[in-house]
Amino acid sequence: MDLQDYLTGKQAEHLDELLAFLRIPSVSTDPDKKAEVRRAGEFVQGKLADLGFDAKLHETEGHPVVFAERHVSSGVPTLLIYGHYDVQPPEPLDLWTSPPFEPVVKDGLIVARGASDDKGQVYAHVKGAEVALHTRPDLPLNLKFLIEGEEEIGSPNLGPFIEAHLNMLAADTVLISDNTMLVPDTPTVTYGLKGLVYIEVTLRTADMDLHSGAFGGGVLNPINVLAKMIASLHDNEGRVAVPGFYDDVLDISEDERAAFKKAPFGETHFKREIGASAAPGEAGYSLLERLWARPTLDVNGIKGGFQGKGAKTVIPAEASAKISCRLVANQNPADIHDKLLTYLKQLAPEGAELSFQSFGQAKAALAPLASAAVQTTAAALKRVYNKDVVFARTGGTIPVVSTFQERLGAEVVLVGFGLENDRVHSPNEKFDLVNYYRGIEVSAALLDAFAER
Amino acid sequence: MDLQDYLTGKQAEHLDELLAFLRIPSVSTDPDKKAEVRRAGEFVQGKLADLGFDAKLHETEGHPVVFAERHVSSGVPTLLIYGHYDVQPPEPLDLWTSPPFEPVVKDGLIVARGASDDKGQVYAHVKGAEVALHTRPDLPLNLKFLIEGEEEIGSPNLGPFIEAHLNMLAADTVLISDNTMLVPDTPTVTYGLKGLVYIEVTLRTADMDLHSGAFGGGVLNPINVLAKMIASLHDNEGRVAVPGFYDDVLDISEDERAAFKKAPFGETHFKREIGASAAPGEAGYSLLERLWARPTLDVNGIKGGFQGKGAKTVIPAEASAKISCRLVANQNPADIHDKLLTYLKQLAPEGAELSFQSFGQAKAALAPLASAAVQTTAAALKRVYNKDVVFARTGGTIPVVSTFQERLGAEVVLVGFGLENDRVHSPNEKFDLVNYYRGIEVSAALLDAFAER
Repeated sequence: MDLQDYLTGKQAEHLDELLAFLRIPSVSTDPDKKAEVRRAGEFVQGKLADLGFDAKLHETEGHPVVFAERHVSSGVPTLLIYGHYDVQPPEPLDLWTSPPFEPVVKDGLIVARGASDDKGQVYAHVKGAEVALHTRPDLPLNLKFLIEGEEEIGSPNLGPFIEAHLNMLAADTVLISDNTMLVPDTPTVTYGLKGLVYIEVTLRTADMDLHSGAFGGGVLNPINVLAKMIASLHDNEGRVAVPGFYDDVLDISEDERAAFKKAPFGETHFKREIGASAAPGEAGYSLLERLWARPTLDVNGIKGGFQGKGAKTVIPAEASAKISCRLVANQNPADIHDKLLTYLKQLAPEGAELSFQSFGQAKAALAPLASAAVQTTAAALKRVYNKDVVFARTGGTIPVVSTFQERLGAEVVLVGFGLENDRVHSPNEKFDLVNYYRGIEVSAALLDAFAER
Repeated sequence: MDLQDYLTGKQAEHLDELLAFLRIPSVSTDPDKKAEVRRAGEFVQGKLADLGFDAKLHETEGHPVVFAERHVSSGVPTLLIYGHYDVQPPEPLDLWTSPPFEPVVKDGLIVARGASDDKGQVYAHVKGAEVALHTRPDLPLNLKFLIEGEEEIGSPNLGPFIEAHLNMLAADTVLISDNTMLVPDTPTVTYGLKGLVYIEVTLRTADMDLHSGAFGGGVLNPINVLAKMIASLHDNEGRVAVPGFYDDVLDISEDERAAFKKAPFGETHFKREIGASAAPGEAGYSLLERLWARPTLDVNGIKGGFQGKGAKTVIPAEASAKISCRLVANQNPADIHDKLLTYLKQLAPEGAELSFQSFGQAKAALAPLASAAVQTTAAALKRVYNKDVVFARTGGTIPVVSTFQERLGAEVVLVGFGLENDRVHSPNEKFDLVNYYRGIEVSAALLDAFAER
């Protein structure tokens, strides 16, 4: 039987199964949905068991992890597919045009919470395995699925689970589909993610808020001081001015530079989409190079003094800012964290008392462009789409990716089936039907290709 | 009858009358208290009428203005006493140790809302007039009282009232007691107030909040931009860097410099009271010179991006800051306002769209140290206290003061009977009994002195 005929013949069944998966309200952050979250895990486990996988639900301190394995032999390549079966809360409910857990298919779109993030993309791989094994039952590939139930709450139990099961999870390649293609109908291999350091600095200059008339000109104003400190975090060329910030940065290779230039990306479109009239940044790098492969620093929040409407003549006692850095390969988050704090302390004038809070840190992840994982993925994508493949990096961060690289020794690639406009985390989340079906075909082709690498 | 004997004999009666005044809950901002506010106005009007004044309640679009006049002849000096009979709301009620409108006298303190701000100080003048006229019934002084009921809500109807009654209100000197002495038991003449310009600037760089991973390095971050702009508002010597900001500033005279040095003011005490470990400011001026007589610029509030606990990786679409300048004599608020906006526009990079809101403007007010008003007041204070008088300016702003100067052609002096720790606008507001009685004596002495100027 021809592959295309098989895919076409199975479309209705593949869609029905995904809709059943989407009907389970597996909102991981909602304690009242604990049983539903588990039910979604059981759904995935059951479907993989039906395909002949050794599929188990592993208990954690939170929601369970689904691990399923089809072991062939230690002599063939091993591919691990990672994804998640939990979803974001659907609120605000009144903005949905149909109930979030009653999926509808209309105008070529599957509308439901989790349709794109990540149930639809995960299930495309489950069905991809079905197709690949139907076509080639003796596929020489050890195939593993690691599908967690806590991605939307920060994966608190995934790190410990990986540490406790390093042998079980060991893989040559990790494949993830929890993202988007760069532009519609364009095969995209995402081979690099940025890392992250996120801190909050609070600057205190007095024991109490002060009247700006009685005290103006005689005291440090923490907002003015904080503004000056923030202004010192970049130089006039848009470079981050934290001493040593760029010391370990892995330069963009010539091959990557060339690949970036071929990416379907235009500054005019980029600006128009977000309503920006300028897209400035670090001198010496193109916009896409900066977005994908250069470390950055941004203030994500600032507050101090009077926040209401109108005027209040106060000099506050304190002001604070949330500051994050996106890191690239070879930068050490702990090192950057320390350099940032040291520099902020240096910038603070006498009389300004600083305190810090540190939120998560994550390393950047990068599979070399020439790596087998990237090239194998690209070749398979090209076969399915019959189009040139886009090699992309992203400024986003998935903390577990560097864990896969470092603890499992795997090369990690991302192949997004979703689109930028899928409204993930928002009302009326959708997944294009064509991308679901195409995802199944791509997944089958990838499994086939990775058996040969 | 000796003055001291008269004062002593009248103490119980003077206190009872003030307590009756304090029992009226004349909260001007509370629509439910409209009748009570009026009743407080009628109380003052009645007491002044009892002393033989031509006293009237003048209707406005809000609460009425009390105007009372004792006209002697156009050949003698005219003194106008300004104050207010309305009070701040008493909330939070649970922090009061006794009900705010049931005044108690305990440990030498009168505790009630309005005790110090401003009923106690206003009524000291009413009783000062009683004493002065009892002692010297033919006092050669045209005496006017202008007691408004909307000071605590920004005096919205006072400006129009003054404009409509310039002849009626005309005076050589305006005397105000709605403030404090510099330190307890120290006669203080306050002869200068700062002016004010207050704006809010909002900086917009995109149509929507953006993910800091996907967009970091490719877009203007409005918080970083705003911080840099704010940092540019001062130079490294603490001077305001708005071009032309100091153009019209009236320098501090040598006499004032000398007087400031004699003021009972110490930097160590100043810092300890507010828990500050530094008191920096404009280079070349002492702390007190900066607080009293140099213009300043402060950010009173800033906000942008994520304000909650924890971390959110957002680049916001906008950020905003509330910025005010305190002005000194000869600076024109409209001019400073325009210079500030022009400079902010200059500082904004391409792609940053600015919008502005302007809140009130007020001119600084200054009576020359050598003026009759200041010297007459000082001489009277010295007689009563038998102590050297402190000549003070303040960084605070009372917008109507410059109106008195410019529209009535009056010299304005402030003589505060209150203390810094009177808890005005806070629970358990108090007025020291000794300051009330001393206030009556000072007022009588001032009326006597101004009859001779």
